[in-house]
Amino acid sequence: MLLKKLERMLFHMDAQGREMIRHVSQYASKNYNTTYILLYHFVLPNISLQVRFELTFFALNPELNVVAPWREWEIKGREDAIEYAKKHNVPVPVTKKSIYSRDRNLWHLSHEGDILEDPENEPSKDMYMMTVDPEDAPDQPQYIEIGIVSGLPVSVNGEELSPASLLSELNEIGGRHGIGRIDMVENRLVGMKSRGVYETPGGTILFTAVRELESLTLDRETMQVKDSLALKYAELVYAGRWFDPLRQSMDAFMEKITDSTTGSVTLKLYKGSVTVTGRKSPYSLYRQDISSFESGQIYDQADAAGFIRLYGLPMRVRAMLEKGI
Amino acid sequence: MLLKKLERMLFHMDAQGREMIRHVSQYASKNYNTTYILLYHFVLPNISLQVRFELTFFALNPELNVVAPWREWEIKGREDAIEYAKKHNVPVPVTKKSIYSRDRNLWHLSHEGDILEDPENEPSKDMYMMTVDPEDAPDQPQYIEIGIVSGLPVSVNGEELSPASLLSELNEIGGRHGIGRIDMVENRLVGMKSRGVYETPGGTILFTAVRELESLTLDRETMQVKDSLALKYAELVYAGRWFDPLRQSMDAFMEKITDSTTGSVTLKLYKGSVTVTGRKSPYSLYRQDISSFESGQIYDQADAAGFIRLYGLPMRVRAMLEKGI
Amino acid sequence: MLLKKLERMLFHMDAQGREMIRHVSQYASKNYNTTYILLYHFVLPNISLQVRFELTFFALNPELNVVAPWREWEIKGREDAIEYAKKHNVPVPVTKKSIYSRDRNLWHLSHEGDILEDPENEPSKDMYMMTVDPEDAPDQPQYIEIGIVSGLPVSVNGEELSPASLLSELNEIGGRHGIGRIDMVENRLVGMKSRGVYETPGGTILFTAVRELESLTLDRETMQVKDSLALKYAELVYAGRWFDPLRQSMDAFMEKITDSTTGSVTLKLYKGSVTVTGRKSPYSLYRQDISSFESGQIYDQADAAGFIRLYGLPMRVRAMLEKGI
Amino acid sequence: MLLKKLERMLFHMDAQGREMIRHVSQYASKNYNTTYILLYHFVLPNISLQVRFELTFFALNPELNVVAPWREWEIKGREDAIEYAKKHNVPVPVTKKSIYSRDRNLWHLSHEGDILEDPENEPSKDMYMMTVDPEDAPDQPQYIEIGIVSGLPVSVNGEELSPASLLSELNEIGGRHGIGRIDMVENRLVGMKSRGVYETPGGTILFTAVRELESLTLDRETMQVKDSLALKYAELVYAGRWFDPLRQSMDAFMEKITDSTTGSVTLKLYKGSVTVTGRKSPYSLYRQDISSFESGQIYDQADAAGFIRLYGLPMRVRAMLEKGI
Repeated sequence: MLLKKLERMLFHMDAQGREMIRHVSQYASKNYNTTYILLYHFVLPNISLQVRFELTFFALNPELNVVAPWREWEIKGREDAIEYAKKHNVPVPVTKKSIYSRDRNLWHLSHEGDILEDPENEPSKDMYMMTVDPEDAPDQPQYIEIGIVSGLPVSVNGEELSPASLLSELNEIGGRHGIGRIDMVENRLVGMKSRGVYETPGGTILFTAVRELESLTLDRETMQVKDSLALKYAELVYAGRWFDPLRQSMDAFMEKITDSTTGSVTLKLYKGSVTVTGRKSPYSLYRQDISSFESGQIYDQADAAGFIRLYGLPMRVRAMLEKGI
Repeated sequence: MLLKKLERMLFHMDAQGREMIRHVSQYASKNYNTTYILLYHFVLPNISLQVRFELTFFALNPELNVVAPWREWEIKGREDAIEYAKKHNVPVPVTKKSIYSRDRNLWHLSHEGDILEDPENEPSKDMYMMTVDPEDAPDQPQYIEIGIVSGLPVSVNGEELSPASLLSELNEIGGRHGIGRIDMVENRLVGMKSRGVYETPGGTILFTAVRELESLTLDRETMQVKDSLALKYAELVYAGRWFDPLRQSMDAFMEKITDSTTGSVTLKLYKGSVTVTGRKSPYSLYRQDISSFESGQIYDQADAAGFIRLYGLPMRVRAMLEKGI
Repeated sequence: MLLKKLERMLFHMDAQGREMIRHVSQYASKNYNTTYILLYHFVLPNISLQVRFELTFFALNPELNVVAPWREWEIKGREDAIEYAKKHNVPVPVTKKSIYSRDRNLWHLSHEGDILEDPENEPSKDMYMMTVDPEDAPDQPQYIEIGIVSGLPVSVNGEELSPASLLSELNEIGGRHGIGRIDMVENRLVGMKSRGVYETPGGTILFTAVRELESLTLDRETMQVKDSLALKYAELVYAGRWFDPLRQSMDAFMEKITDSTTGSVTLKLYKGSVTVTGRKSPYSLYRQDISSFESGQIYDQADAAGFIRLYGLPMRVRAMLEKGI
Repeated sequence: MLLKKLERMLFHMDAQGREMIRHVSQYASKNYNTTYILLYHFVLPNISLQVRFELTFFALNPELNVVAPWREWEIKGREDAIEYAKKHNVPVPVTKKSIYSRDRNLWHLSHEGDILEDPENEPSKDMYMMTVDPEDAPDQPQYIEIGIVSGLPVSVNGEELSPASLLSELNEIGGRHGIGRIDMVENRLVGMKSRGVYETPGGTILFTAVRELESLTLDRETMQVKDSLALKYAELVYAGRWFDPLRQSMDAFMEKITDSTTGSVTLKLYKGSVTVTGRKSPYSLYRQDISSFESGQIYDQADAAGFIRLYGLPMRVRAMLEKGI
């Protein structure tokens, strides 16, 4: 069930939010009945990450006190932190030689730092790790079909896969075609701008596929309400508020509204881009007989006259006011 | 001034909305002091188009009555309408042989009908008119730099161009690289689903560039407010409500908020995709000294502790309630 | 269950929307397997009511055709309709003598027409039927306590009552104190303005009580999300879209988020006004120890410094940009 | 001009936000070219107030450092602060004897502390200072007419008054009738709940009057957009972000959209309640000929049939899908 939730979550939040899941599950498995907890992830004094860790601790044990070395001691930056760790024999996966700050999970790989710190610089070709350069991708496009049940992806080209295997598979396929590179200036939790480059081949493919299927199964107004809630959902998760009744209530909404988002989407992968080439669903609201505007049993051209006269009534009332009629 | 507004509008609304401008300016130049107006654009009995025409008439002359042949007479569809026009010697630009229903303006070219009516079908290669197939695009990527002043694009690669020339130029460049093909299932004004394919190479490039520059010049909250108003703006224009005080008031907001969106964005065009490679602005809110989290005059790691304790207070209060503390 | 839903609904929609429930349940109990249905409620050619009826019919039986006499025949208004009904021996509850158009259900009584049609006119004292004039209300205020469980009112002054009995009881008590008169210019479905006066004593009391309890049990952000969904909920119901998956999904959200809205609210009724005098809840997020700003285990004044420096960072960055620092 | 803005602001923000204006204008008149500023308002270690002060300082001089005694020294609460001030001969307007924490300006008077700290307690009768108890108010209602031009109140009973005099006058009149007492549990900036009681007689009258006039001059959709921006506007001001381009841009929107909000509203004041009894405007969108549903030149009953069939199309499409038609 939690896994199900985690998977669902993948489709409602942005990349950094997902970081939390990995870290929290690590911590949650431990015993929270201590008074102090030492934040050892001190090589990354990223404010957004700290917030996510600590708010989660607050939610699980409100009496916990957090000690974070780089906030209390004389550690001014990344370099100092790595130095300190070495001196005290704390193993640090990132060495001074790695010029980028990277984070990786199943969903994505992020790059920050070095030449990226100037938003005018193009990332260098050799920085990327999950995706080939689009220029080096195959000259032949590849078609894939994603199967979706109630909003959750379940198969690739007809083969059913567990959520994790499915994402791995798509990372592999997408990476081969240079899919899912995102270079952006974003806003951290407290509003400071930062520049990051992400690689998320599988995520890009899944996001495109689910979105496209929804264009068949959800009407415009539903889409708008869902989108505005998804934005709030991402904000909460990004801000470490996973254990918030508001998020849980939005989940209840999401599960209900995606009930009929079942079907499949065909995508074409080619040198860095994903193109939708077909979509179908047993719950599709698209009807060829109505869409084509031919008059028939359901759609009658004559109805438009009355519709427009009523729909335009406020427009006419205002114009009459202006003309003194 | 109107031209300025029209140009601004290009960045706040969707493709179909722009159609209206062309048609309305045609009509607006005529004399509205008649009692009846004949909607001669009868080969396209599209409800969204009708609404746009007629609401604009209402706004300009609330006493006008509209006569639309296909609503009043025995014209059941497109075929009937073309038949009727021929019989009465009305010149019809679209012949029966053209299997797609197309609309073209400076901003875009749309395709509907024929095999597109089944959302499972991939568009055929020979349908496109403004863009080459990405597979046939040059093997070498092309870099272009878009100059922007107060939210409006003004130059390409340093050469200043009028809005129309700039868009034409980008249509040409983008089309050569297969940029701006959009295949989508959308929702018409009254909610029925339809499937359309758009070609908008210049539009895609400009939208990407302006958006990217905003990531430097606008903060997160401003972006969110602007986005939600832009959605409403597009809705109004799409629904023929150009002459609505609400739209004018949103324009006042937009002009003010994009005041500082000045700078340039460099893009890489390659086989169907647009990638941002650099952005700069004299009004950039990005600061390398803050973004890198190194402690300094402005950013102090120690502040994070207090921030998080206060920011997480509601989370702790809820957790304390649950634990009975 | 349906009753539960109806009751819940009372707290999320406006007065006119509730009308639908009564009418629809009347119809829903009949057989929908006919091809044509005659809208006999022809004395009230109110566009909002028509929409509510017909959209519900569409949802229950999409093949149904609706015949509405006043739309098809030569009936130009209310007077004509009553005349016609009399001639054909159709019993009409509203006679020509009743100068107001009224609608009444358990929740409210509405008045339209006659002198109310000029929004400058004050309603006459003798128009009201559920409430006494505040000037004639008792000189002594009355205190009542409303008990609420998971967002739904369940008791008055400690006495548990069924939803319907509770509302009746409050209509009686509130009416005696002149509570719940609402005189407003509102917007019908298609946007035309109309002026109506409502009497809803029980509704006013319940709305105030539930809202007040939520100020203890829900945090600000949750309240904002709930409010924006409630607005959309009311729009859907008002527009006859009760049987819409979007409404059902919002219901799932509402049920979850009001889970902890349990407690009681004390109100003072006096000459037309309802004043909250006390509220309590076992799930209250209000904590006296934090609210008073005294430094303690949870709240530490010193934290504010770090909080503000980070919270105000974007403000400082912008100011530094302007000053060229 | 600034005064005009301040007045406009009164209608878009909540009570606490207005506090800032007074304090900031005091400070802004001084010289900001110092490096340190001493926050002497230390008797009120309210986090929301601190944020408002300091963010404004940041905006005016980003290099300023703030020293706040109660955050740095051993001052744990209100009592300690008053003690400290006395010892150092700092004059403190609030003495230990005043059991409530109060703030007063032209717009309102707020009460916090003492028995109010338990949200179950009714405020005691002798706490109020600007308003009489409704039970002690005159037995005769009083009618007043507020004149409004472009959204700003300009006259009372036909007498033109400056903004400040107008508000004073209404405070006096409203106070006499017990108008504008608000008892609420609210959310401070960082989310902690607090309970406050406000007296704002003039504000309550003005808010009601302007709102009511808007019901004539603005259409529903405009009202909704304006409301959602007003909420954001209040949030910004409440959070000390007066000098934010986003607020300025919303101001541009507000000035444009309230252009036609001109007219007058008549209100009845009686024992604590304000009732609207009439409203009129030369720009009223209300039309008696349309509102009454009588068929005529503008409104034709027959149009409703076409309108509903098209408006209900998505409902029917979904129902057809469910029935397999």
